[in-house]
Amino acid sequence: MVMPGYRGRIERILKRASVKVGDKVKVESRGRTYVGVLMPRTDLGDPNHLVLKLSSGYNVGVRVEAATKVTLLESGELPRLTLPRPEIVQDPNKPLVTIVGTGGTIASRVDYRTGAVYPSFTAEDICSAVPEIAEIANIRVVEACNVFSEHMTPDLWVKIARVVAREINAGAAGVVVAHGTDTMGYTSAALSFMLRGLFRPVVLVGSQRSSDRPSSDAALNLISAVAVAARSDIAEVTVVMHGTTDDDFCLIHRGTKVRKCHTSRRDAFQSINEVPLGMVRNAQIKMFRDDYQRASQGGRVRVQGKMERRVSLVKVTPGLPSNVIRDIISSGGKGIVLEGTGLGHAPESLFDGLALAQRRRIPVVMTSQCLWGRVDMNVYSTGRDLLRLGVIPAEDMLPEVAWVKLMWVLGRTRDPERVAKLMLQNVAGEITPRTRPDVFLRPIFEAK
Amino acid sequence: MVMPGYRGRIERILKRASVKVGDKVKVESRGRTYVGVLMPRTDLGDPNHLVLKLSSGYNVGVRVEAATKVTLLESGELPRLTLPRPEIVQDPNKPLVTIVGTGGTIASRVDYRTGAVYPSFTAEDICSAVPEIAEIANIRVVEACNVFSEHMTPDLWVKIARVVAREINAGAAGVVVAHGTDTMGYTSAALSFMLRGLFRPVVLVGSQRSSDRPSSDAALNLISAVAVAARSDIAEVTVVMHGTTDDDFCLIHRGTKVRKCHTSRRDAFQSINEVPLGMVRNAQIKMFRDDYQRASQGGRVRVQGKMERRVSLVKVTPGLPSNVIRDIISSGGKGIVLEGTGLGHAPESLFDGLALAQRRRIPVVMTSQCLWGRVDMNVYSTGRDLLRLGVIPAEDMLPEVAWVKLMWVLGRTRDPERVAKLMLQNVAGEITPRTRPDVFLRPIFEAK
Repeated sequence: MVMPGYRGRIERILKRASVKVGDKVKVESRGRTYVGVLMPRTDLGDPNHLVLKLSSGYNVGVRVEAATKVTLLESGELPRLTLPRPEIVQDPNKPLVTIVGTGGTIASRVDYRTGAVYPSFTAEDICSAVPEIAEIANIRVVEACNVFSEHMTPDLWVKIARVVAREINAGAAGVVVAHGTDTMGYTSAALSFMLRGLFRPVVLVGSQRSSDRPSSDAALNLISAVAVAARSDIAEVTVVMHGTTDDDFCLIHRGTKVRKCHTSRRDAFQSINEVPLGMVRNAQIKMFRDDYQRASQGGRVRVQGKMERRVSLVKVTPGLPSNVIRDIISSGGKGIVLEGTGLGHAPESLFDGLALAQRRRIPVVMTSQCLWGRVDMNVYSTGRDLLRLGVIPAEDMLPEVAWVKLMWVLGRTRDPERVAKLMLQNVAGEITPRTRPDVFLRPIFEAK
Repeated sequence: MVMPGYRGRIERILKRASVKVGDKVKVESRGRTYVGVLMPRTDLGDPNHLVLKLSSGYNVGVRVEAATKVTLLESGELPRLTLPRPEIVQDPNKPLVTIVGTGGTIASRVDYRTGAVYPSFTAEDICSAVPEIAEIANIRVVEACNVFSEHMTPDLWVKIARVVAREINAGAAGVVVAHGTDTMGYTSAALSFMLRGLFRPVVLVGSQRSSDRPSSDAALNLISAVAVAARSDIAEVTVVMHGTTDDDFCLIHRGTKVRKCHTSRRDAFQSINEVPLGMVRNAQIKMFRDDYQRASQGGRVRVQGKMERRVSLVKVTPGLPSNVIRDIISSGGKGIVLEGTGLGHAPESLFDGLALAQRRRIPVVMTSQCLWGRVDMNVYSTGRDLLRLGVIPAEDMLPEVAWVKLMWVLGRTRDPERVAKLMLQNVAGEITPRTRPDVFLRPIFEAK
């Protein structure tokens, strides 16, 4: 067998050349020549490419066509295709951290040094791949689900919340949730609202770069996340990801104030409207603030997992017609979050639809598509008109977080006044009481 | 008459105290005492407040209740309630700049020194209020419409485009469009696509702070915008707004790459995924780049204003169901822009709806809710699934800009292949060919 992963044309070409994974080969394709070690293919890769590890250490995907020529240069073995499985010694002096797998890249592809790919997800695999974490804590690994994060659902949030609660109630010092980055901010918000009485750290972590590349952020992120879970006194749901593009430090973001702000950079995750809680460098934690929930030794986490699924997030655009609201209501919608313009505005063309929502007692919550800053619907007449239509101004809540919260609030009550009250009550740090004026962004490029 | 603007209870209380606008008064309300000059009320203010200019120069709104007491301290006149209307001398050596009013704050409240409020909008008013602009250019003022920008519509974009084209074709050196900030980025994108054969600068400008406050950004923004219209060689639609929170300099943003990123800060407008074109300090322009369309002396601007209104912008959320797409299609929708997750992903639950759109030949365009970075749908299997469903990856286009562009493209053609081709063709700088890795944001707060 060449290697599970290569199929069809590539498998035939490799067989013809008597090449197996681990061999050093020459590949001639589209007029270019590549020399490197043939790597196993992963499900994440393009099935029309084979993967070579170049002498530089970088992996490259080479497109294989009918005319592509592969030549064996030297037989070889992948350095550590089967990892040695060290007996994990449970050190009674170390805290126990549970890593909950959900299917993100970080969980399935953790060996960042050899480029080898591990579909399995055991404590042994992870500790072998990133041995630093075993120095911080005794590691236990459980799987809650196995999906790319773009396919995460509210049902899976509940499942993850239950696993996290179970682990903490069973004595884990902290829990790390390994999660794809696409919707990590949604899941961190959902866990923040669902986990009531949280008394230990819960840390979401992911990886922006595949861990089979030397530039991967997986190892530093995982080490830092385990450090926060094992050593911090933050009894909140947080997201721990790279603070810069250097493999330098990670930032600790509150789970309700964080957003993926870049499709590919390692420092894509940013706290919005507040300073991050702290940072992690060399597995050492430095807090920037002291307004967070402190961990304690005992307690009991409960999961308030009931969520109203029929809540819509509507981005306001110029001239948005009222039938958008009417369609949501006639499809059985139970709540609407608007991503309004500026201080929390929507066009007059939407007012009829909003009046209908008000008559039907369907709560409508206002956030801002600016993302930074705070909704203030008392400044202009449009805002006051919207307040009269019963629209609930969601302070400085992120639109996505307000959407998750409204699902959760409607799982508690249907009474419009109680919904409004709960939406404006600070349940999990989602509302910053006072915005620091210096919490914004500036372009990295500098105007001179 | 006390003053147009004060009505009901406030008018009665002011009459009883024989107080008129311009008088120095003492107001006792809710246990606090305020002393200042009574200012005229504007339509933008809360009808239950009166406005005092304190000796500090700041205006304050004081809530008036039944028990509020107003006492006349000293009769007075507002310093320049009726501005002297200087004869504007047309200087043949200066370029002509047309300021097009659309109804934004900047146009209607320009006297930033006295706090006086001018509902009218004439060249004389503006030149009196911000005399610096008359030193830069001969100013002509026309009104295209008069709405808050949250009520701007695609129909009004066309109207503005026609006025701009008329002014340029009639010989204006450049045009400034005074616009509310809420939807300025949408209008700047729309004008960028509609104005074909543009050969002079078109500059959108607005104000984040009311111009009756000393901290207003209106004057610097307007001066800088007129400077770009009169003196720059940028034959593109740009947005000129504060570069920092200091009254220091303005940045020149390309009209298709700019976004309002803060509800209230003066530097809310930021170029996304590219370096701004340049900056303006003391009405002097400094360019950062040379990849822009150069102005020329002659030419003819045409307006391609046909827009397909039935285009939806859908923000992707976890578990988003296919009936969202079905509802859009059954309501007669002709195009959809998705604000996907990460590199351009959507959940499996949406695939049925996307397959329906594909069968009905309704184009679906993918952007990223990360905002920064670029859609890449070849990295993960979800992206490749979406490509097979005919989804068009919109490179690094902002979601709002892709939405405007799809309306414009569908005004040209209904053929799905031509739509896809035009969406990926760089019409007005909306696609950055190569992303500079340093074009991102960093929090203003510094991690140590």
